[in-house]
This record gives sequence, C-alpha cells and structure tokens, in this order.
Amino acid sequence: MDDWKRLIRDVPDFPKPGILFRDITPLLGSPQALGEVVAAFAERYKSRGITRIVAIESRGFIFGAPLALHMGVGFSPVRKPGKLPAKTVSVTYDLEYGEGTLQMHEDAVTKVDRVLVIDDLLATGGTAEAAARLVTTCGASVAEFAFVIELDFLKGRGRLDKVAPVHSLIRY
Amino acid sequence: MDDWKRLIRDVPDFPKPGILFRDITPLLGSPQALGEVVAAFAERYKSRGITRIVAIESRGFIFGAPLALHMGVGFSPVRKPGKLPAKTVSVTYDLEYGEGTLQMHEDAVTKVDRVLVIDDLLATGGTAEAAARLVTTCGASVAEFAFVIELDFLKGRGRLDKVAPVHSLIRY
Repeated sequence: MDDWKRLIRDVPDFPKPGILFRDITPLLGSPQALGEVVAAFAERYKSRGITRIVAIESRGFIFGAPLALHMGVGFSPVRKPGKLPAKTVSVTYDLEYGEGTLQMHEDAVTKVDRVLVIDDLLATGGTAEAAARLVTTCGASVAEFAFVIELDFLKGRGRLDKVAPVHSLIRY
Repeated sequence: MDDWKRLIRDVPDFPKPGILFRDITPLLGSPQALGEVVAAFAERYKSRGITRIVAIESRGFIFGAPLALHMGVGFSPVRKPGKLPAKTVSVTYDLEYGEGTLQMHEDAVTKVDRVLVIDDLLATGGTAEAAARLVTTCGASVAEFAFVIELDFLKGRGRLDKVAPVHSLIRY
C-alpha cells in the first residue's frame, strides 16, 4: 500500500480550490503496480461467488475490465445518460450541487448474479450507491463495493455499508 | 471473428435515426470473448517494441487496461477536457457538427515511447487522429492504431494510415 501511495500524485486545487485530487495516472503508468492492484482484488474475491463485475464510467473501467478477465466473469458498464444503446435502467441521485444520472443496460445483470461494484475512488458514495440501485433494480444482488482509493473524511463507507460491505485498497 | 460478431449487438437508430450502433456490451459480458480479443492484440504486439498503451475515454479503457497488463507496459488515458488533474496537452478536432477536444497529461508519454493508440471502434478516425497528435506533441511516436471494430464505410483507415498503421479485429 505504501508503494502504491508513492504512485498516487496529489494535485492541489483540482477540480476547484481547496480540493486535493488523488491522481492515479502514475499508478496506471506502472504495469507492476496496476497488476498488483488487480491481483489484490482478484485474491480477495476468488472464493466469494462473484459472477459479474459492474464498473462505473470511466476510471472504474480501467480496474474493472482486467479484474473481470482475471476472475473469469463478465463485465458490465454503468454509464452516464445517452451512452448505452439498448434498453437501460436509470437512477438519479443527489450530487453536491444538483443531480446526476447513471444508466445500465437492463440485461447487464440477471437475478442469479452476485455483483461486485467497482470504481477507482470512494468519496461520498453517491455514485456507487446509485450503481448498486441499478444492480438491484435488475434483480441481482451486490456482494461488495470495491475501490482502489477511499477518502475516509468524506464518510462514503457509512453510506454504502447499509447496502453491501465496502473494501478499499488505499485509504486517506 | 465470426464468434465475436455474434456477441456484437446491432441497435438501429442509435444515437439518432439512421445510425446502426454496434454494441459491444454482450462481448464484454463474455470473459472468454473479452480474453480472446485482448490476447489477439497481445499476440500481434508482442514483438513490436511497444512501450505504452494510450487508450481513449471511455470504452478504449476497457480494452487498453487489460492489454497494457498483458503486455507489461504502462497505460495512459486520453480524456475529455477538465478530467485530468495535472498539466495536460490538448487538441481540438472537427466533429460532424462542431468540434471536440481531447487531453492527455503532458508526462503521460516521453520521447522514447513507442505508443499503441487503442479505442473500441474506428469510425471517421477523427478521435484517434487527435489522440495521435497528443502523443506526438509530447515527443513520442505512434507505432500503430488498434481497434476492436472498424466501420469500413466511414473510411477512417484512409485518414489514419497517413499517421501510422491501422489494425482492427472486426470489420463491418
């Protein structure tokens, strides 16, 4: 974890003044570190009966796709409105200012699926909670939420663990 | 390839009337097919001296990340404006109506890098050409463009192959 933290770049005042952004692009530039992150998730989930990875656009795709391959399960994207071409389910959720909407194909998961919801970063948890609602709307269950980074001070864990357990690799 | 085509869903009139959208989400739902696609790229590029995968947001991430891991090279994202937190290079390019802009971190590639630019689909080639300009602006060279799907009738290949060779797995 300390090695991974050395590959996360702190960018002050992004996207706005006062926010310290945790930039994962140096970690993505290291195939060793990216491989370790994916392997750490795969090790945790190898005996949990996960049948599907649901990844949140767009940085969640970077971790979710290799993890799905590593685990030998299908990958389903959760995207912003208007991107998915077939029949979708939608959920609207509160953001700091205003609202956000996420969509998933209605055939992306089925009633028998035990889903791992993955994203790069857990902040307030609103986005991941919305993704979980898409999963349950389609009749599947959320086995766990997985994040590379968790920002403890934003307390997203307390919001999500009412839905499913939360696991993160790197905490600030 | 025929097996892969069975996992690409045709969605008529998306995103607007008259457009036949090639939906890759069924392919993503098959770990076998997704693994074959990544392995096919990895086989082609194993002896080409590629040092970096540059993937275009956001479906390019789904193929680019596992390919980078498979090849043991770094992954760099090209994103829409305002998403990347550190110093970026930008390029603006023509779209069917209006303009698009893409950004990449200026330290995403270096002068010694031989880059594979990857996206899920080649249409007119404008986005991939813009990504290549980001790569060359940073002093690196584009070894090849890789796509899962190519739409021949949009003639993107003719535009891109002035910059670097073009390789696609599935053609329509």
